[in-house]
Amino acid sequence: MSRPKVVILGAGFGGLTAARALDGIAEVTLVDRHNFQTFLPLLYQVSTAGLAADHVAYPIRGALRKTKVKFRMGSPISVDHKNKSVKLDSSEVLGFDYLIVALGSATNDFGIRGVAENALGMKTVNEALNIRSEIMRRFEDLCRFEDDTKFSIAVVGGGPTGVEMAGAIAELKRGPLTSDNADAAKNIDVYLVEAGQRLLPALSPKLSERTKKDLEKLGVKVLTNAAVKEVKPRQIFFADGQKIPAEITVWAAGVKGEPTMKKLSIPEESGRIAVDSTLQVTNYPYIFAIGDIAGAKGADGRFLPMVAPVAMQQARFVAKQIQRLQDSAPLTAFKYVDKGSMATIGRHKAVVEVKGVRIGGVVAWYMWLWLHLFYLLGGRNKIGTMADWTWNYLTFDRGNRHIMDIS
Amino acid sequence: MSRPKVVILGAGFGGLTAARALDGIAEVTLVDRHNFQTFLPLLYQVSTAGLAADHVAYPIRGALRKTKVKFRMGSPISVDHKNKSVKLDSSEVLGFDYLIVALGSATNDFGIRGVAENALGMKTVNEALNIRSEIMRRFEDLCRFEDDTKFSIAVVGGGPTGVEMAGAIAELKRGPLTSDNADAAKNIDVYLVEAGQRLLPALSPKLSERTKKDLEKLGVKVLTNAAVKEVKPRQIFFADGQKIPAEITVWAAGVKGEPTMKKLSIPEESGRIAVDSTLQVTNYPYIFAIGDIAGAKGADGRFLPMVAPVAMQQARFVAKQIQRLQDSAPLTAFKYVDKGSMATIGRHKAVVEVKGVRIGGVVAWYMWLWLHLFYLLGGRNKIGTMADWTWNYLTFDRGNRHIMDIS
Repeated sequence: MSRPKVVILGAGFGGLTAARALDGIAEVTLVDRHNFQTFLPLLYQVSTAGLAADHVAYPIRGALRKTKVKFRMGSPISVDHKNKSVKLDSSEVLGFDYLIVALGSATNDFGIRGVAENALGMKTVNEALNIRSEIMRRFEDLCRFEDDTKFSIAVVGGGPTGVEMAGAIAELKRGPLTSDNADAAKNIDVYLVEAGQRLLPALSPKLSERTKKDLEKLGVKVLTNAAVKEVKPRQIFFADGQKIPAEITVWAAGVKGEPTMKKLSIPEESGRIAVDSTLQVTNYPYIFAIGDIAGAKGADGRFLPMVAPVAMQQARFVAKQIQRLQDSAPLTAFKYVDKGSMATIGRHKAVVEVKGVRIGGVVAWYMWLWLHLFYLLGGRNKIGTMADWTWNYLTFDRGNRHIMDIS
Repeated sequence: MSRPKVVILGAGFGGLTAARALDGIAEVTLVDRHNFQTFLPLLYQVSTAGLAADHVAYPIRGALRKTKVKFRMGSPISVDHKNKSVKLDSSEVLGFDYLIVALGSATNDFGIRGVAENALGMKTVNEALNIRSEIMRRFEDLCRFEDDTKFSIAVVGGGPTGVEMAGAIAELKRGPLTSDNADAAKNIDVYLVEAGQRLLPALSPKLSERTKKDLEKLGVKVLTNAAVKEVKPRQIFFADGQKIPAEITVWAAGVKGEPTMKKLSIPEESGRIAVDSTLQVTNYPYIFAIGDIAGAKGADGRFLPMVAPVAMQQARFVAKQIQRLQDSAPLTAFKYVDKGSMATIGRHKAVVEVKGVRIGGVVAWYMWLWLHLFYLLGGRNKIGTMADWTWNYLTFDRGNRHIMDIS
């Protein structure tokens, strides 16, 4: 029996893992709009001058060198369901026996006014560099003013992304910017805004409390029960009528399935792709969806979290499902094995929760460092990141404070 | 006697050296449109995926931390000669007793048609990243075509910049791109185009010949006596009626004084600022010009080369001139001490000429490496660059092949 043709849309954690798992089993073509994979968990460190942009990216062709997987740079514009093919924006048409949709997620503004216009997302390298530029540009303004003008940065969203971002901005202010110009740096305020009762709701209340205290020690003003009603230029308005100043609003409040999925003519469910427990798209058995874009549910009937471990487990699972289909064996239902959750707050400060075991402080921080280094693609990125981190750690400095968005 | 106020326009090799030399002697304000210094000699390695963009940049405030020098991010828009002040695009007005113009250079198209529209310059980090994106994007096209379509990259200009660029593109093709997709990589042609009789005219004819042979060994098609008449999309036309295909034209044929100088209302000479032998601007004794933008001449009556050593020697010289003016001592004439010239061609291949001593091959290559590492600003950039170089050297790979110009 000849090997099936599989097209995978998206080369994030899910898509790339699926491509490698299917290599040898199927003729695989991997499609992504970028020629590199972005290591999203460290993007906030690009925004806050800790890491070079090139170190959180990895060339997809480099990741595929030991495989027979083909790569195409492009975006899908339509699927021909009758002839089983997907058309890319390069006009190329790729035929498939199975299609795996792994397009990931995009910033979700939940319909809140002004987010699209006045807040900065952080889903791509360019967005991360844009945040870095905005912070450094406003800092240059304060340096020039030489007066008591204040400037505040608000991070909206108390999940791991928001917590890590707020902590890193606070450390950027305390360390490098204070060394650059202490008078200007002290006029920067950092807010972390969460609509719910506590930070990191996926972790235990005890770790939430610890996270809040750690952030406050770093100088972050943490607001909980603060539902954003509208983001205006330089101000955020809350549902209860309160407001805070915000020269920069970073939107880390949530994500939704990447809107490109609308071009595929397959069923949606609450902003994700509707899938059965087999991860087949509902009514489209030859199409699978994995990762952030897949509306797969856990035992509690709720969507699985949009995190890398889910995508990678689903990727390996779908590779097996395709093999089962080839072998005319019955498909099985996907079960997510939760390996726990973690977030770093700052130097020597992190929280980790694995199967009810809660760890905080230095130990959690080292666990976080090693786990992220381990999952970072490529030896060069590992070495570069380790070098940057060691430098930052020893010097209390961050070298990538460049405003690169002007010619 | 109180310390004089000095404003320095431009934080390149000249401006930053002048600022540090004057610290303590004068109240110095350094102005640059970027908040970082770009290490121009290594920009071609960013274009060819060898170095991360952030590693050839260094935050200016970081370079000034141990000084009392003030920094302002901005560009001059006018000089009030009567009141001795310069106005920046931020509207700030900086008063000065002495002004040092160190604005550097910009790409010179020599009035050749189509250069501005169809060729890529390489004077800024963004331009370097643009070249990298264009090369990698055309490579992705070839990978998609899967046929015999050819794609050629032409570097115009046989000086050190052009030679280094052409060699690095040829090595990118031979190593990483061949590993990525050998069928596509073999369809890339690399041209180096020089209007004069030989490459590296500042060096001896023997080293020029060696450079040509080394480049040809790497697969570069070297054209000399080839004066460009017009750059069209995908084609370059020469004065003698010949033409070559060029999907990408990189313009490294020459530079001229940065046009911002026109806003300063001071005399020009052949695209540079007219200066006396004291480096005072002709007729404007309280203004000095240094580096690429200064029309200083050597003993032969010709303009000094636009290279970092000239700028740095002039910077230290002008700091002394200002002290002499403060001491009411007579000014002296600037004399350039030529330390030699060098260019790298590729792995183990470089040429160096110092006071008539000519060196080629591996020894020259190591000299080039260490000299560039030495002059790179900041320990972090040194470590990062050394790590990237070691990685590239050992793996024959280049990790920064990312197309980052799309969201």
